[in-house]
Amino acid sequence: MRTFIKYYEPSLNPLSGGKGAVSVLSPATVANVVCGFDILGFALNNPTDEFTVSLSDEVGVHIINDDDFNLPTNPEINVSGAALLAMLEECPDVKGFTVISKKVVKPGSGIGSSAASAAGPVVAANILLGNRFSKSDLVRFAMFGEKVASGVKHADNIAPAIYGGVTLIRSIFPLDIISIDAPPLHVTVVHPQIEVRTADARQILKQHVLLKDAIKQWGNIAGLVAGLIQQDYDLIGRSLEDVIIEPVRSILIPGFNEVKQKCKDAGALGGGISGSGPSIFMLSKDAETAKAVEEVMKDVYNRIGLDYQTHLTTINQEGVKQVV
Amino acid sequence: MRTFIKYYEPSLNPLSGGKGAVSVLSPATVANVVCGFDILGFALNNPTDEFTVSLSDEVGVHIINDDDFNLPTNPEINVSGAALLAMLEECPDVKGFTVISKKVVKPGSGIGSSAASAAGPVVAANILLGNRFSKSDLVRFAMFGEKVASGVKHADNIAPAIYGGVTLIRSIFPLDIISIDAPPLHVTVVHPQIEVRTADARQILKQHVLLKDAIKQWGNIAGLVAGLIQQDYDLIGRSLEDVIIEPVRSILIPGFNEVKQKCKDAGALGGGISGSGPSIFMLSKDAETAKAVEEVMKDVYNRIGLDYQTHLTTINQEGVKQVV
Repeated sequence: MRTFIKYYEPSLNPLSGGKGAVSVLSPATVANVVCGFDILGFALNNPTDEFTVSLSDEVGVHIINDDDFNLPTNPEINVSGAALLAMLEECPDVKGFTVISKKVVKPGSGIGSSAASAAGPVVAANILLGNRFSKSDLVRFAMFGEKVASGVKHADNIAPAIYGGVTLIRSIFPLDIISIDAPPLHVTVVHPQIEVRTADARQILKQHVLLKDAIKQWGNIAGLVAGLIQQDYDLIGRSLEDVIIEPVRSILIPGFNEVKQKCKDAGALGGGISGSGPSIFMLSKDAETAKAVEEVMKDVYNRIGLDYQTHLTTINQEGVKQVV
Repeated sequence: MRTFIKYYEPSLNPLSGGKGAVSVLSPATVANVVCGFDILGFALNNPTDEFTVSLSDEVGVHIINDDDFNLPTNPEINVSGAALLAMLEECPDVKGFTVISKKVVKPGSGIGSSAASAAGPVVAANILLGNRFSKSDLVRFAMFGEKVASGVKHADNIAPAIYGGVTLIRSIFPLDIISIDAPPLHVTVVHPQIEVRTADARQILKQHVLLKDAIKQWGNIAGLVAGLIQQDYDLIGRSLEDVIIEPVRSILIPGFNEVKQKCKDAGALGGGISGSGPSIFMLSKDAETAKAVEEVMKDVYNRIGLDYQTHLTTINQEGVKQVV
């Protein structure tokens, strides 16, 4: 908030209803949840980015970075900017927004950094405007931000960031987002500090898959969804199997197979590549197991000699949330 | 029961605990439920086959047909026989079974005639033997019967026949069957009287599918499972879409596209090919719509000039059930 006052005098703008600026926490997210490639994601309670949005009398979006990531401030090539520009298109009464971006979720980590950048500001802007848009609209705007980041309009990180919890994207055109009830789950994430570009990770996938593999995959996603809603941890664990994407993409992540096997040996229900990597996530039934899983991850990357960061957290049920 | 007395004097056999014979009703089933190819099925309250099983002092399985289908009585090539022979392998204390088969579900109709023949007798035999086997064991035995019928050991008709309701086969080896809670659903089936052999229907499928189609399919199956468990009829309807199997197989069924579109226009949630065809099933929220759907089906096939049979029924929640 400290840099805010310099740029905008919010009380001058009647649209904000006296609210000068809205600050939100926008969560990291895990997408491509094992057998749920391109359709299933969930939000994390940690890490989160912070965005502060205010109305501006200048036309367009004005980006102010308050972190060390040196992201572009030209709104057309900035994820938050592109999302807010898409929103502005449908707000003829609004001239512009100013965003102060304080990112924590590392770009390129595979835990939805760009989705956090896209989702947070549009939710904040919507609060400023009296919640005139539905969550589904906000996902639509935020996808313009994702497109800047990865070249593709996908919603599997954005939907959980905005809705919270576990979300299914049944269809992207037309957009059909379904919240999936889930039992309490502990999430351990390790981010080995290597670069896997989303576009590269997408390019190595084969355009065709064997029908028999596809059948296995849809058996598993059906089992996973049933396990989540019916709170059947065993079934969740059995269903966390990906016979299509993981065998191809995991070769880009040093230590992947060892981490996965040892984490399961330590009691994790299962897990896999987060997004398009390089982060790996594991789900556990309780905090103690999740902590043991973190130790396993550290051991593997300490031995390999690769820098890493871990996050020990739970599923975020609220999505982007206003800081009050 | 009338032909029974001639073949066996049940009270002589101590294993049956005084029960001379057990009669069961074994239901027709719908498998390959739209986007759930090879993994999702459900049981119908109508039509059903009737099987009466008794212990025999002769080694092996003795088949008696009490219907007009002229099915083989050699147990190795008879679906009920092959299933019971598999069961006998694990019953060292049992010499043999006699089965009286009174089939109603037409072989080759696509509503699980062979599964009814496989499931009914093993459930009846298990009751005779004091329920020594689990449902999962019974599915395993019955799959030997399916293999006789279609050359492939599949469980997507057998599982709902034995468990009742809607069942998911998450995995076939190892066998993992999950009962999926579902809201009340009305089912309308039309069986146009043409022959589609399961083996042929399987052969025309491509071994490879586009990844983007597979993603659509697993989005839909995830949506369908969520819709069923969360009792969301709209979501069920939206998810009843098959972009992989139906476009290929429906060309074998005259009138398919017209039936499907007109049934949806008449209010059906959706539906598709039952099993590998030629039957077509439609799901509706209420009995009135299901009846209107039946009229639409009749109209189409009357106009085409193809003989047909319809069934107006609901989902059978119990599976194979003893006649008492």
